[in-house]
Amino acid sequence: MRSSSSSPTYTTPEKTKAEAAFVQLIEGLTNIGLTTAVRNGDKDSLLVFTRLASNDLLAQQVYSSRLQDWLQGVRISGPGSDVSQAIRDEPVTEAERLRLVYLLITKSRNEGGAGITQGQGQWKYVEAIFPLHNNAFNKEWLHKWSKKYILDQSDLDDIRDKFGENVAFYFAFLKDYFRFQIIPAVVGFSAWMLMGQFSTFYAICSCLWSVVFFEYWKRKEVDLAITWGVRGVSKIQHQRPEFQWDFETEDLVTGEPVKVYPPTKRLQTQLLQIPFALACVVVLGGLVATVNSLEIFINEVYGGPGKQYLGFLPSILLAVLTPTFSTILMATAKALTDKENYDTMDAHHAALVQKQFVLNFMTSYMALTFTAFVYIPFGNILHPFLNFWSKTAQTITMSEVPLETRQFEANPQRIANQMYYTTVTAQIINTLTEVVVPYIKHKASVKAKELSSKDTAKTNDQPEEAEFLKRVRNQSGLEVYDVTADYREMVMQYGYLSLFSVSWPLTACFFLLNNWVELRSDALKIVIGCRRPIPWRADSIGPWLRALGFLSWLGSVTSAAIVYLCSGDKKEGSASYITAGGVLLSILLAEHLYFAAQLAVRFVMGRVESPGLQRERKERFQMRKKLLEETVGHAASEKATVAAPGVEKTEQITRQTLEEEARQASIHGHGSPEEL
Amino acid sequence: MRSSSSSPTYTTPEKTKAEAAFVQLIEGLTNIGLTTAVRNGDKDSLLVFTRLASNDLLAQQVYSSRLQDWLQGVRISGPGSDVSQAIRDEPVTEAERLRLVYLLITKSRNEGGAGITQGQGQWKYVEAIFPLHNNAFNKEWLHKWSKKYILDQSDLDDIRDKFGENVAFYFAFLKDYFRFQIIPAVVGFSAWMLMGQFSTFYAICSCLWSVVFFEYWKRKEVDLAITWGVRGVSKIQHQRPEFQWDFETEDLVTGEPVKVYPPTKRLQTQLLQIPFALACVVVLGGLVATVNSLEIFINEVYGGPGKQYLGFLPSILLAVLTPTFSTILMATAKALTDKENYDTMDAHHAALVQKQFVLNFMTSYMALTFTAFVYIPFGNILHPFLNFWSKTAQTITMSEVPLETRQFEANPQRIANQMYYTTVTAQIINTLTEVVVPYIKHKASVKAKELSSKDTAKTNDQPEEAEFLKRVRNQSGLEVYDVTADYREMVMQYGYLSLFSVSWPLTACFFLLNNWVELRSDALKIVIGCRRPIPWRADSIGPWLRALGFLSWLGSVTSAAIVYLCSGDKKEGSASYITAGGVLLSILLAEHLYFAAQLAVRFVMGRVESPGLQRERKERFQMRKKLLEETVGHAASEKATVAAPGVEKTEQITRQTLEEEARQASIHGHGSPEEL
Repeated sequence: MRSSSSSPTYTTPEKTKAEAAFVQLIEGLTNIGLTTAVRNGDKDSLLVFTRLASNDLLAQQVYSSRLQDWLQGVRISGPGSDVSQAIRDEPVTEAERLRLVYLLITKSRNEGGAGITQGQGQWKYVEAIFPLHNNAFNKEWLHKWSKKYILDQSDLDDIRDKFGENVAFYFAFLKDYFRFQIIPAVVGFSAWMLMGQFSTFYAICSCLWSVVFFEYWKRKEVDLAITWGVRGVSKIQHQRPEFQWDFETEDLVTGEPVKVYPPTKRLQTQLLQIPFALACVVVLGGLVATVNSLEIFINEVYGGPGKQYLGFLPSILLAVLTPTFSTILMATAKALTDKENYDTMDAHHAALVQKQFVLNFMTSYMALTFTAFVYIPFGNILHPFLNFWSKTAQTITMSEVPLETRQFEANPQRIANQMYYTTVTAQIINTLTEVVVPYIKHKASVKAKELSSKDTAKTNDQPEEAEFLKRVRNQSGLEVYDVTADYREMVMQYGYLSLFSVSWPLTACFFLLNNWVELRSDALKIVIGCRRPIPWRADSIGPWLRALGFLSWLGSVTSAAIVYLCSGDKKEGSASYITAGGVLLSILLAEHLYFAAQLAVRFVMGRVESPGLQRERKERFQMRKKLLEETVGHAASEKATVAAPGVEKTEQITRQTLEEEARQASIHGHGSPEEL
Repeated sequence: MRSSSSSPTYTTPEKTKAEAAFVQLIEGLTNIGLTTAVRNGDKDSLLVFTRLASNDLLAQQVYSSRLQDWLQGVRISGPGSDVSQAIRDEPVTEAERLRLVYLLITKSRNEGGAGITQGQGQWKYVEAIFPLHNNAFNKEWLHKWSKKYILDQSDLDDIRDKFGENVAFYFAFLKDYFRFQIIPAVVGFSAWMLMGQFSTFYAICSCLWSVVFFEYWKRKEVDLAITWGVRGVSKIQHQRPEFQWDFETEDLVTGEPVKVYPPTKRLQTQLLQIPFALACVVVLGGLVATVNSLEIFINEVYGGPGKQYLGFLPSILLAVLTPTFSTILMATAKALTDKENYDTMDAHHAALVQKQFVLNFMTSYMALTFTAFVYIPFGNILHPFLNFWSKTAQTITMSEVPLETRQFEANPQRIANQMYYTTVTAQIINTLTEVVVPYIKHKASVKAKELSSKDTAKTNDQPEEAEFLKRVRNQSGLEVYDVTADYREMVMQYGYLSLFSVSWPLTACFFLLNNWVELRSDALKIVIGCRRPIPWRADSIGPWLRALGFLSWLGSVTSAAIVYLCSGDKKEGSASYITAGGVLLSILLAEHLYFAAQLAVRFVMGRVESPGLQRERKERFQMRKKLLEETVGHAASEKATVAAPGVEKTEQITRQTLEEEARQASIHGHGSPEEL
C-alpha cells in the first residue's frame, strides 16, 4: 500500500538504547495497523518499510479524513454513510493515501496515531520519514514534459495526484506566470527596438500587466482550490509542536480546549521586526552602497596601476560578505520567528516567509535601486564617496602625487548591464546550482558510500531486491524538497520584472526562456535531486500572494520614478532638469493609474463567474436540493397546494380584529400565530 | 392578521371598467387566500382591507419562504420537516408577515401570487398597496426614544421587527455614526480652541478616524446581517418588471431559464455616464464658480450703490438655478439608468444611487471646493472674474466713472462661514422641511378634504369604525417613505466631515447635535409623515458603502491639500510660498498614511472574530454535527475502534509488492483500494 523508510542510525555506545527504540518503533507502527519490513540501509542505518495492513484500514482513514474536512467546511457535501460507497464515488489518490499514512505515523497517540516524530525525544534515532518515489510515474512525467511545449491542466492534476496540492500549486503558478510573461516579453522587445530604455509606454504596459496578472492569479487560485477540493484547507490548522501556551480555554464554537498565548505578548515580540528590518537595510544597504561606489571608482574613475586586478575586488567583496551577512540575518529571522511563538504551522511559516522576503528584497534589489535612484540621476552626490576611495587608495599605495583619475560621468548603460547579469548570468548559475550541482554532489557521495561500505551491506541484499534497495538508499541520502525556495525564486524574479524592467525592457524575454527551463528543471529537481515530498495540501500559494501584490504596487511607483529620473538628456549636466514636483507627480500618476486599473480589472473580472465558483455554487445548490428532498419532501409538495385554498369570501374583518391584532402583536413582541 | 389598504379611484366615464377591475381585485385577493373588507375612502376612492384567511396559510408561507432562504444559502440550517414546529422555534415577526403578504399580493400568478401591481395595466385603479401603521408600537417607540439619550441594540431589533431590515440598517448606521462622531467632535473642539483652522493635527486625526469608522462599519454590517439572519439576502435578486431581455438561456447551476441582456450592450449605455458626469461638472461647477465670484465681487470688492440689496442676488440665483439644473440632471440620470436596462432591482437601484451621488457630490461640495482650492490660496486668479463683474456692473448702471471698489483680499474666514452654513443653518432648515413642512402640508390637505367631502363620506362610517377609518384615510394620503433619501443625507454629511472639516474643526460638534435630533426626527417622519414602509430585507447599507469608502479616501487627499494650501501667513502676498511639489508631497503623504492606517486597522480587526461571525461559525459547526449524528452516526463511532486493529507482525513486504503497487497505481490513475 505504501512504503516509507525511516532509518535510525546506530552509534556503538548507545546500542542498547537504539535497539529498544527500534523495538518501540516497530511496535508503534504495528499498533496503528501498519505492517513493517526491515532491510539494511547505508552503513549504520536501517530501512524500515511500512504499509497499511489492509484496504479496509485505508478506507476507514480516508473516510474519517473526508468527514473531518466536511465538518470543517472544506467539503460542501458530506460523505454518505456507506464507507466503501464513498470511496468508490471518489477514488483515493496516491497523494491522499501517502498524506494520511504520514499523518497516521506522526499524529500523537491520543489522536489515534503512532506519535513518531523524526529526531525528537524518544524517536531521536528516526532520521527521516518519507514516501518512496513512484519511478514509473516520474519517468513518464519527465518524458512527457521534455516533449511538450505548453503544459495543461491535466499535467497539473497529475502532480497534484502524486505530490499533493502544495507542490501542484507551485507548478500551477509557474505555468500561468510563464504564459502571462509572453505579453511583457513581446511588448518589451518592441519597446527595446523602438524606444530603448526608460520608455513611458513600456512602464505603463508593465504596470497594467502586473495588475491583470495579479488579479487573474487571485481568481485562478480560488478556482484551482475548488477544482482540487481543497478550498478552505488553510483554515484547518496544524498545531506547532514547539508552541508554548500560557493558559487553556474553551473554543466558543466547538467547545474543545484551546491553548492560548496572549496576542499582546506576541505583538511585543513582533515589534522587534522593525529593528530587524532596519538592520537589514543598514547592513545590506550599506554593503551595496560601499561596494558599488568602490566599483564605480575602480572602473570609471581610477586610472592608476593594477586596474585589471582591482576590478575583481568589488565582486569578491560582495560574493564573500553578502552570504555572510545574509546567514547571520537569516538566523536572526528564524530566532525571532521562534520567539514569536505561533500556535500553528501556517502562521509560523507565514511570519518566517515575511522576514525572508525582507531579507531577499534587500539582497536582490539593493544594487539596482542604488544604480537607478542614486547613480544615474544624482551621480554628483557620489563625489564624496569617490574622493574617499581616492584618498584611501592614495594612503594604501603611499603615493605622494594624486592618483591618475578620469572625470566621472554617469552611464545609463550600467543598469542594463546589471539587469543582464540578473536575468541571464544569475539565472543560468542558479539553474546549475539548483539541479546539476546537487545531483553531482549526491552521485559522488553515493559512490563514496558504496566504496566504503562495499563489503558489509552488499552481502545481505537478496538478488531480486538489490536494485530496489539501492534506489531506496539513494533516495534516503537526498535532500528534502522545499517548495518555499522555489516560490522565493519566482517571486524575486517577478520583482525584477515589476520594479526594474523599465530600465531594460528585454528582461521579460530572458525570464520567459528561463521559466520554460525552470518548469522542467524543477520537475527534474524533485525527481532526481530530492526525496519525495510529503504530499501536503494547500489552497493557495500562501504568504507569497501578499508579496506579489506588494511588488506589483511598488513596481508602479519605481517604474514611474525611474522613467522620470533616468530618461532625459544626460549631456546637459546631471539632475538639472529634475524637480521634486516632477518626481512626485509621476509617482502620484503611476500609483493612481495602478489603483484605477485594479478597480477596473476587479470590476470586469467580477462580472464573469469563474468556472470553479460556478461549480461550487452548483454543488452547494444540489446538496441542498438533495437534503431538501430527503428530509422535508412532503412539505415542499404541500407548497404547491397552497395557491388555491378556497377561502370563503364572507369572513368579516372588523376594525376590532385588525387593530386588536396589531396591538396584541406589539404587546407580546412577536406576532406568532399560536398566540393569537 | 394583516391589513393592507388599496384604494382604486373612480372617475365617472370609466365607471364600468373600474367596477370590473374592483371585482377582479377582490377575486384575485380571495383566490390566494386573503379575506377582504371594503370601506369608503376619500371622495372617489375605496379602501380595501385584506388579511390572511388562516394561520395555517401564514405558516405555510413563512415556511416556504424560509426554505427558499435556506436553498439560496441565506440560512445555515434548513427548517425541519415539521411546519408548525419550525414556526414555534422561530416566531414570525410583524415585518416577516407583512413582507410575505405583500409579496403574495404582488407576485405574478405563476409564482402563486395575485399579480397585483399598483397603477399598472389591468390594475391601474390600484393607487397604493401598503401595510397599516401599528399605532401602539409607534406611540411607544416615540415615547421611548424621546426619553433615551443613547440607543441600544434592542431599539434596533424593535425597528427590524416592525419595519424590516432595510429601515433597521439605516437606523443602525445612524446610531453607530452618531456614537463615532463623538471622537472628531472632541478632537475638533480641542483643535479649534488650541490651533484654529487648518491644523495638521486635526487633519491626521480626521483621516485616521474615517479609516477606523469605515472598517468598523464594514464589520458591523456583516455582524448585524448575521444577527438578523439576513446575510446573503442581497444575493436573492428580485427581477425588475421593466427589464427587457434579448434572449433566454438556462442557469448553469439551478437549471432554471434565465433572461439575458448582453452586458456588452449595457456597457455601451453605461459609457454615457462619462459625458453625464462631465455635464454635471460643467453645469453645476460653472454655476458655483459664477455665483461665487459674483458674491465675492459684491461683498468684498463692490462699494457702489445698492450693495445691501445686491447682496441677496447670488443667493437668489443659487436658490433658483441649482434646483432647476438638478432636476434636469436628475431626470437625465433616471432616463440613463432605465436605458441601462438592469435585470434586477438591486442593480438598478445601485446604478441610480451612483448617479445621484455624482450629482449630490457636485451640488454639495462645489462651493466649498471653490473656496478651499481657488479662493483662499489663489485669490489672484479671480481678478479677471472680478473685473468682468465690475465691467458688467458698469454697463448695467451705465455709469461713465469706474465703480467705487475696494482692494480684494482673500479671507480664510469665508470657508468657516460656509461650513457654518452647511452644518448649522442648512441642517436646521433640512430638519424642518423633512418633518414639519410635510406634516403641516398633510394636515392642511386632510382638513381641505374633510371640508369638501364632509357630507358624502361621513355618513357611511359606522360609529365604532369611524376613528380607525379616519386614521387609515389619513395614512393613505401620506408620502411613501424613501430610506435612500435619508442615507443620502447622512453620506453627504459624512462627506462634509471628511473632506472639509479641517477648515472648520467645529463641524463634528454640530453634526453630533444634529444627528441626535436626526435619529429621532427620522423616527417621527416614519410614524407621522409617511405610510408604513414595506418591510423589505437588506444585508447592508448597499451602494452607500462604496460612497463612504470613496469619501474617506478623498478626505485624506483634500484635507492634506487644504492644510498645505490654506495655512501659512496670508499677509505676505497670496500663494508665494506654494509649490507644486509641496502640494503633491502633502497629498502623497496623506494618501499613504490613509492606506497604511487601513492595512493596520484591517490587520488588527482581522485578529478579533466578531460576535456575529463567531455565531455563524458555531451555527454551521453544530448544523454539520447534527447532520453527522443523524446520517452517519455509526461510521463516526466505528472510527474510535480503528486505533488498535491488531495486525500480525509477520506479514511480509517484499520489493515486488511495494513496487508493483506503485506501478499499478500510476497506470490506473488513482490508487483506489478496490483495484488492488
